[in-house]
Amino acid sequence: MGKTAIRTAAKVSFDIPASEQKVLHNRWHPDIPSVETIKDGETVKIECVDWTGGQIDNNDSADDVRDVDLTKIHYLTGPFDVEGAAPGDLLLVEIMDVQPFEDQPWGFTGVFAKDNGGGFLDEIYPSAAKAIWDFEGIYATSRHIPHVKFAGLIHPGILGCAPSADVLSTWNAREGELIAANKLERDVAKPPEPLNAHAGIASAEIKEKVGKEGARTIPGRPEHGGNCDIKNLSRGSKVYLPVHVAGAKFSVGDLHFSQGDGEISFCGAIEMAGIITINFKVLKNGVANLGLKSPIYIPGPVEPQFSPGRTLYFEGFSVDEHGKQHYMDVTVAYRQTTLRCIEYLRRFGYSDYQIYLLLSCAPIQGHVAGIVDIPNACTTLGLPMDIFDFDISPAAVATSGSAPTKLDMGACAFETGVAEGKVTAGGKNSEHSFGGGLTYKASVVDRVKGTVTTS
Amino acid sequence: MGKTAIRTAAKVSFDIPASEQKVLHNRWHPDIPSVETIKDGETVKIECVDWTGGQIDNNDSADDVRDVDLTKIHYLTGPFDVEGAAPGDLLLVEIMDVQPFEDQPWGFTGVFAKDNGGGFLDEIYPSAAKAIWDFEGIYATSRHIPHVKFAGLIHPGILGCAPSADVLSTWNAREGELIAANKLERDVAKPPEPLNAHAGIASAEIKEKVGKEGARTIPGRPEHGGNCDIKNLSRGSKVYLPVHVAGAKFSVGDLHFSQGDGEISFCGAIEMAGIITINFKVLKNGVANLGLKSPIYIPGPVEPQFSPGRTLYFEGFSVDEHGKQHYMDVTVAYRQTTLRCIEYLRRFGYSDYQIYLLLSCAPIQGHVAGIVDIPNACTTLGLPMDIFDFDISPAAVATSGSAPTKLDMGACAFETGVAEGKVTAGGKNSEHSFGGGLTYKASVVDRVKGTVTTS
Amino acid sequence: MGKTAIRTAAKVSFDIPASEQKVLHNRWHPDIPSVETIKDGETVKIECVDWTGGQIDNNDSADDVRDVDLTKIHYLTGPFDVEGAAPGDLLLVEIMDVQPFEDQPWGFTGVFAKDNGGGFLDEIYPSAAKAIWDFEGIYATSRHIPHVKFAGLIHPGILGCAPSADVLSTWNAREGELIAANKLERDVAKPPEPLNAHAGIASAEIKEKVGKEGARTIPGRPEHGGNCDIKNLSRGSKVYLPVHVAGAKFSVGDLHFSQGDGEISFCGAIEMAGIITINFKVLKNGVANLGLKSPIYIPGPVEPQFSPGRTLYFEGFSVDEHGKQHYMDVTVAYRQTTLRCIEYLRRFGYSDYQIYLLLSCAPIQGHVAGIVDIPNACTTLGLPMDIFDFDISPAAVATSGSAPTKLDMGACAFETGVAEGKVTAGGKNSEHSFGGGLTYKASVVDRVKGTVTTS
Amino acid sequence: MGKTAIRTAAKVSFDIPASEQKVLHNRWHPDIPSVETIKDGETVKIECVDWTGGQIDNNDSADDVRDVDLTKIHYLTGPFDVEGAAPGDLLLVEIMDVQPFEDQPWGFTGVFAKDNGGGFLDEIYPSAAKAIWDFEGIYATSRHIPHVKFAGLIHPGILGCAPSADVLSTWNAREGELIAANKLERDVAKPPEPLNAHAGIASAEIKEKVGKEGARTIPGRPEHGGNCDIKNLSRGSKVYLPVHVAGAKFSVGDLHFSQGDGEISFCGAIEMAGIITINFKVLKNGVANLGLKSPIYIPGPVEPQFSPGRTLYFEGFSVDEHGKQHYMDVTVAYRQTTLRCIEYLRRFGYSDYQIYLLLSCAPIQGHVAGIVDIPNACTTLGLPMDIFDFDISPAAVATSGSAPTKLDMGACAFETGVAEGKVTAGGKNSEHSFGGGLTYKASVVDRVKGTVTTS
Repeated sequence: MGKTAIRTAAKVSFDIPASEQKVLHNRWHPDIPSVETIKDGETVKIECVDWTGGQIDNNDSADDVRDVDLTKIHYLTGPFDVEGAAPGDLLLVEIMDVQPFEDQPWGFTGVFAKDNGGGFLDEIYPSAAKAIWDFEGIYATSRHIPHVKFAGLIHPGILGCAPSADVLSTWNAREGELIAANKLERDVAKPPEPLNAHAGIASAEIKEKVGKEGARTIPGRPEHGGNCDIKNLSRGSKVYLPVHVAGAKFSVGDLHFSQGDGEISFCGAIEMAGIITINFKVLKNGVANLGLKSPIYIPGPVEPQFSPGRTLYFEGFSVDEHGKQHYMDVTVAYRQTTLRCIEYLRRFGYSDYQIYLLLSCAPIQGHVAGIVDIPNACTTLGLPMDIFDFDISPAAVATSGSAPTKLDMGACAFETGVAEGKVTAGGKNSEHSFGGGLTYKASVVDRVKGTVTTS
Repeated sequence: MGKTAIRTAAKVSFDIPASEQKVLHNRWHPDIPSVETIKDGETVKIECVDWTGGQIDNNDSADDVRDVDLTKIHYLTGPFDVEGAAPGDLLLVEIMDVQPFEDQPWGFTGVFAKDNGGGFLDEIYPSAAKAIWDFEGIYATSRHIPHVKFAGLIHPGILGCAPSADVLSTWNAREGELIAANKLERDVAKPPEPLNAHAGIASAEIKEKVGKEGARTIPGRPEHGGNCDIKNLSRGSKVYLPVHVAGAKFSVGDLHFSQGDGEISFCGAIEMAGIITINFKVLKNGVANLGLKSPIYIPGPVEPQFSPGRTLYFEGFSVDEHGKQHYMDVTVAYRQTTLRCIEYLRRFGYSDYQIYLLLSCAPIQGHVAGIVDIPNACTTLGLPMDIFDFDISPAAVATSGSAPTKLDMGACAFETGVAEGKVTAGGKNSEHSFGGGLTYKASVVDRVKGTVTTS
Repeated sequence: MGKTAIRTAAKVSFDIPASEQKVLHNRWHPDIPSVETIKDGETVKIECVDWTGGQIDNNDSADDVRDVDLTKIHYLTGPFDVEGAAPGDLLLVEIMDVQPFEDQPWGFTGVFAKDNGGGFLDEIYPSAAKAIWDFEGIYATSRHIPHVKFAGLIHPGILGCAPSADVLSTWNAREGELIAANKLERDVAKPPEPLNAHAGIASAEIKEKVGKEGARTIPGRPEHGGNCDIKNLSRGSKVYLPVHVAGAKFSVGDLHFSQGDGEISFCGAIEMAGIITINFKVLKNGVANLGLKSPIYIPGPVEPQFSPGRTLYFEGFSVDEHGKQHYMDVTVAYRQTTLRCIEYLRRFGYSDYQIYLLLSCAPIQGHVAGIVDIPNACTTLGLPMDIFDFDISPAAVATSGSAPTKLDMGACAFETGVAEGKVTAGGKNSEHSFGGGLTYKASVVDRVKGTVTTS
Repeated sequence: MGKTAIRTAAKVSFDIPASEQKVLHNRWHPDIPSVETIKDGETVKIECVDWTGGQIDNNDSADDVRDVDLTKIHYLTGPFDVEGAAPGDLLLVEIMDVQPFEDQPWGFTGVFAKDNGGGFLDEIYPSAAKAIWDFEGIYATSRHIPHVKFAGLIHPGILGCAPSADVLSTWNAREGELIAANKLERDVAKPPEPLNAHAGIASAEIKEKVGKEGARTIPGRPEHGGNCDIKNLSRGSKVYLPVHVAGAKFSVGDLHFSQGDGEISFCGAIEMAGIITINFKVLKNGVANLGLKSPIYIPGPVEPQFSPGRTLYFEGFSVDEHGKQHYMDVTVAYRQTTLRCIEYLRRFGYSDYQIYLLLSCAPIQGHVAGIVDIPNACTTLGLPMDIFDFDISPAAVATSGSAPTKLDMGACAFETGVAEGKVTAGGKNSEHSFGGGLTYKASVVDRVKGTVTTS
């Protein structure tokens, strides 16, 4: 009588490479075999590795971030068959809990190098950087970003059901057209990639097919959700996921201890390995009954609470850092909003990279404000002031009548050869640049804070 | 001893055209004369007309919305000098209260016609439409959108200090370049417009200059804020505004009883005339001390509270309604997110136009979710379920195992000749379209919901 | 078409004594004639005087508080007939708004003298004291309690329907027995009081009857609610009130700009005159359908939001200030909890009377914590730290390693002859007392803070 | 480099009786030896058994609750020395996490029998009853109380530092006087009890002394906190505890998955075994610096969020269920408030005992409302409507115009011989009674409130 421990539907190992673990895979494809069957109505635990499959270490160098192998990501756990699920149904996924492993109470936030992954601000901050976070219960702190502590709004970055062959074909065609038309000097999408494709327990034949056709896990997609990176999709949330194949073939991974809206540095959440507890229910014919083209969700009731009156909001508009006017471009506006916040926090002693990392993973609110006032989209970014152990409010500065006193903020981890101060790439904006057209990487001799030297 | 009634710094009239009222103006220009001086530290009341200056009537036709004269908007109250304010200072504006006029307890939300103003979804919903809202204390209801009631998150859409001549020049150059380069079949920005320019108490000479040079009030701009349309900039908020000219020359207007993130239908908030109570403080040298390039603000403590567990979130991605993949385009993603919500609510009996109006003005949360997962930006839209007097939750539908029962939802106001059903412009997406390339306006015979006929 | 201004169902005057105004009354009795009829479903405005009917002035002396005539209170507006209401129905009262009069933006909080009204802590703080509050929009501040500002959680202290003759008879018998059995040296209840009874527009005969039989308005009572003093029964709240007589005969008054749980100083809220906007609906047979013996209510959605992490909680137990153990007495426990808070805030420079006033009217949370752990009831009192403009958190003190620095806190208003320092009545607790059995009133020479001298 | 798993300072066993485990004790006494030393600044995990030490089983009979041996409770873990702590210091205890054991995901709520423990409503509900709760991540559900699910506001019921000999002496004298003066027909306090006293690793001599002098753990006490049963003292909370002996000798236990304000059925929280993670800091001279006579605390930021507009509040007054008027008695008022809620929920099909259990453990808000309006104290009880999976709001009933439909609610566990329906101590209200000839333990002749007759 009574409940015993909840069944674990899939276990991962920290001793075996992710690429060899049978319960993992890193592509979306309908032919990847299910690793386990879950009952309709059942609650199970599912273990997950971190999204890179263990490529990032708990140390003070960002060389691992700089050298990350992107062909391997994301390692997801699954797929799982849910009894009775069929195309046209909805899979109601209720996230009962997410926890780090008890003996691995840490995670990482990285700034990917511009030429290997990049991020939202990589034109300005091109170097690799990293912050390691320690978990104590609900809280995270980092030796790389001092004077900050916050409760995790813990969640999976990725969850979704496998695409059907038709859906997969649509994805590949749609994204292929974008790639074909690309004139930017950067990747705009990632086509199927056989290298390092992992298809779980698939046969060699299937694995080869998955490598050729399988969709990369990097983008979220409207038909199934996937890598949505929704920071509030946390404990207690109910997600309604369209089912495209028999059994649903549900996968999950990319666990985040915390994330800010936008996850701006790409490796931007507090990435971690951990355990997610999920209840599954099949809603027959749910796609039609609810009229869903994309997933919907209802957050859980236990989000960290910050009073609106304790949240500092920055405003940004679609005029870029070079002074160019863009037409109703929310992406540009949000980038500007994040820069405004960096400029503000910089005055307390943090380096730009520390703030870039922090805004990626702390529970900041990124809002679309006005989107109809041509030509300027306006967005806001809400920064909870209570995550700092000193007073960042403008009232303090306003009262004192002077600029804030800088604290000793140490430094985040950098790739070899990059200093830790407030260094940025060159650019027209003199406040951002070293000036003189010097490149960033050439400019640094050693890792002593504040002694950035340029050649 | 003790406080008496708060001073009203500027009064408006409902009997005199807005264009003739001395305390109003509708362009940004440093030469528009101040109408009143406010002390540093003083709290005053400021009366405002609605943003159109009375062009929209409390009736059941949207012809007034269709025919709105956009050269006249926005009518702002001011400018006001604040004693001691000088360029480089910050003006700390604390919004103590915003209220509709006691004898004018109503407001309007409009969908502008595609060819006269347009809106975020005008490619799909090109006709003019309108909802009138009645206010009873904190609550708004509409005869045009039944079964909905919500508390206002009341705020000014526009507030800011006058630009300096230099700042104005930057604006005109920047936006002029965008206009010059435009290849879209729509306005991308509005250049200075002498027609119907109103410069308050300016001399004829100054007025002519303001008409030629004055910036339109439509967009918000990074240097001063202006038309930010930030729904949470409500009562109790403190805004830090950069000062560009002696005295600050502060203006305010475009009062909203409520607004959703994005204000998607352009005339999208619950627009109203009313009274704003503001406390002003001058922070000397504040721009440098706080390092501000754009305004920042801290919301007030009295926002309507909806539990996260009572908020239904829709997800959208940067794949447009024609199936085209866009690269990291948050604007596209947010448009899709709003469409997902329209498709959902449509099933309860609302027309698309009713929902479009509702999402514009109800306190929906528009979040940037993921902005780094190439090629798909992901945004979410949170709809508070408690603003409806019936159960819109997916749980209800999921439990019943069938599509929701439609209620009698009446109709919003339309321009003459347009029916009230779920009619939309043509398009590839068959669920949205009439098909056959038929135009929307030609397609309707009478205003019976659900019996839209096309010719 | 469309809504015009909301009808005012009853107006009050500031030029006519409350005792002569026809829309007011100050006793509960079924025979007090209705002053107006309200339709089922109608929303109306109702004007109210302050609960004392104007006995307290906006000045710096508490002599008016000391001398208040309690036979006159509370002046309520009404009673109102609601069409169709009959005994056994519920009256659904939705509070759409509460506002002070625009030209009277102030209120008062008083500590009644121990021998004329008293309060929760009158054994320790027996003197009359007063704080005047100024309103600017949503915020209140006081010249008598500096460094504090908070948003009002505005509400009516009293609302209810008239008792039937039977219900009234029950009240008088029940409270009469308590009075008859009383052995305390203080009033335990107030019997009917002909002196200064005001029965609105009643005939002389009825008025006499009301004076003899009418229940005092001081206590709330289970059968109809009445003077509940529930601080969260604010704007947007829906209250379900049992109807005892034909037409309901609803009355309302005792408007509060803000109140703390317990309203501990009796005249403890920020008392004010103002206007309440109410929607009325009759729910036929509601008492039986909902099984109600007492009113229930659902708060509105716009309460001021303070993060739990920004609220400082004090704990108190049922051991009194003399060290005596009481058995599961929540009243004793809550008194101790308030004393703990006074002791804490005193260290920042406030006088005890200032804090007593503040805890009465600021939105403090008074919780029953444990009520079963014999012999100690435990209660908690949550103080929002964000209402202060300086840091009261224990972290600040803990970090500094020393006691807090006292600020210049000025003084609240006192009755003549009482100083403003941290003076209290004598008692065993030496920290609270002057010692030496000296009486409080005799002990003071002048009103200079901190120089209390005793004779 | 980097953090490894957090150290566990004390482990408990489920195979050894609690009375034999060295890290447990069940009395407060300064001479109980410390079991472990914790560094100033350290974070550790501490394992705890349930408060009864395993006396209650996960089954469907409440005989174990009826027969509980109260001389054994509460089993606390500790005491722990914290390095550097000395009398006069404060121990800052930050609760980083509380979790049930992974393989014991259940807890229990009990109604103690009136003659063995009792509870807040034992005059009316004298029988033993029980509900077993299953945990899935953040949520609890019970087979004994269907249609309810809620997130735990998980916390320790008891934490505190050991009393000094002086403090202990004060306690024993103070409570001894109460016991000596007692004229009620029930225990009013528990004196020291040698039977089943457990003093951890103490010598036989010390153990005997502890048995004779040691304070029972049942009540919280002002000097050190102890059994406060504060439901919001959950994860993220910081508690400031006075230190009375060298090393502090901190103990903790009585973990609750959830509790309602008041914990009204005594065994009223969801009692569980589990693990608490705590960070300890010593604040030198903190008692004097902060002026503390009792603990204070600041809650954590992750409480479950229910909108005020989704909370149903009941009002209660100090008129008891026999119609007797009490003078300003909050205890009586809160009891009435809970009864109002029972009467309300009963109409949906729950038995009174199910509701009594539910109100004890669900996160209900118990507020002191008005405490100065003689003779009636008023309290409110807020019930979050969103914990039910059906609509309990009065609006539903009000709209339908009829009483609610009863659902099949099954039954809670009862002691042998007691039926499971809506059983109460009988009474005039037939809805309260068994009828049908079943005896209610044959025990009730005149359990007050109207002639309980049993056959």
